[in-house]
Amino acid sequence: MKLYHMPDSGNSYKPRLLMAKVGIDCDLVEVSSRDGSTRSADFLARNPIGKVPLLELDDGRYLAESNAILLYLAEGSRFLPKDQYQRALVHQWLFFEQYSHEPNIAVRRALKIYEERHVLATPQRLQETLEGGNRALQVMETRLRQGPYLVGDEMSVADISLYAYTHDAEVGGYDLSLFPSVRDWVERVSEDADHIVM
Amino acid sequence: MKLYHMPDSGNSYKPRLLMAKVGIDCDLVEVSSRDGSTRSADFLARNPIGKVPLLELDDGRYLAESNAILLYLAEGSRFLPKDQYQRALVHQWLFFEQYSHEPNIAVRRALKIYEERHVLATPQRLQETLEGGNRALQVMETRLRQGPYLVGDEMSVADISLYAYTHDAEVGGYDLSLFPSVRDWVERVSEDADHIVM
Repeated sequence: MKLYHMPDSGNSYKPRLLMAKVGIDCDLVEVSSRDGSTRSADFLARNPIGKVPLLELDDGRYLAESNAILLYLAEGSRFLPKDQYQRALVHQWLFFEQYSHEPNIAVRRALKIYEERHVLATPQRLQETLEGGNRALQVMETRLRQGPYLVGDEMSVADISLYAYTHDAEVGGYDLSLFPSVRDWVERVSEDADHIVM
Repeated sequence: MKLYHMPDSGNSYKPRLLMAKVGIDCDLVEVSSRDGSTRSADFLARNPIGKVPLLELDDGRYLAESNAILLYLAEGSRFLPKDQYQRALVHQWLFFEQYSHEPNIAVRRALKIYEERHVLATPQRLQETLEGGNRALQVMETRLRQGPYLVGDEMSVADISLYAYTHDAEVGGYDLSLFPSVRDWVERVSEDADHIVM
């Protein structure tokens, strides 16, 4: 298998973290959304959505969308519950991540760290993403006061997905000390993953 | 089962459309994000994410996120492929819908039709959502030139999810005549669903 990825992207980090935890070998190919290469004709032929990460299977077929890649790679492992309702909750958190969490917490991080995004970092945009991100962190805090992981008592791909941009949220200006259960959960998920960096 | 929904929301429309196609009976409870009732203490106790749709199972457990509800309800039906890769592609399209399609096409529709949103409908916001929505429609067009449905040769929950806001895209100012394969697909998905309105 081959993973097209951007090293400092949280979305690309998700499958790399899961593969490290499960023990899956995969070739890595760097592609950057910052230099336009995710929009090149060559890359768009592989993934018309024009984003990383992108998984290329050994038979040449492709799979896009970070959370779809997580679900595919986790099948049969301890990171994906077999019970239908538990699995549905994993899906729930994965959609929450892409709709309510990433567009605030990842976007605000990018506004802060990428020089070419500074022009987009208006006071209004920074405020909207701060408020939206804090709402998302509060939803996680509410759940994580009730249990050690987002779904059931075991780590799942829901945790891996939401960990990607949460563990780095302070770079975007979020204060995790306001969300103590989230902060403790970050520690739990990071175990045995400290060598996987983004 | 009970579905908390907002009648003119495309996200709420998705599970209603699937249930009509599969033949699932469900009680409907109206909740509106426009009058603040999705943010009431009562509703937040059911769904901390504060959004509709929300599914209440017969045993009182809850499931949020429209696409997670689709996957749950479709299990075992013809709308969810059993093959692992085909199912992964369904997931891919569902995440694409929530990240690249809905935040443009549904948001622009809301800016146009809800009076309280008119103040947010700045020229810049209208332009961004027009361009983002057209990019999403082009991704669908690319796929639908190759096959009748988004995944394989059969209708799946990927089609049901993306149909919700695509069939209504002209309300938001998108021109589906620019995407003829998408327009033909809208016709195919709408068969036997004309009585389910949003």
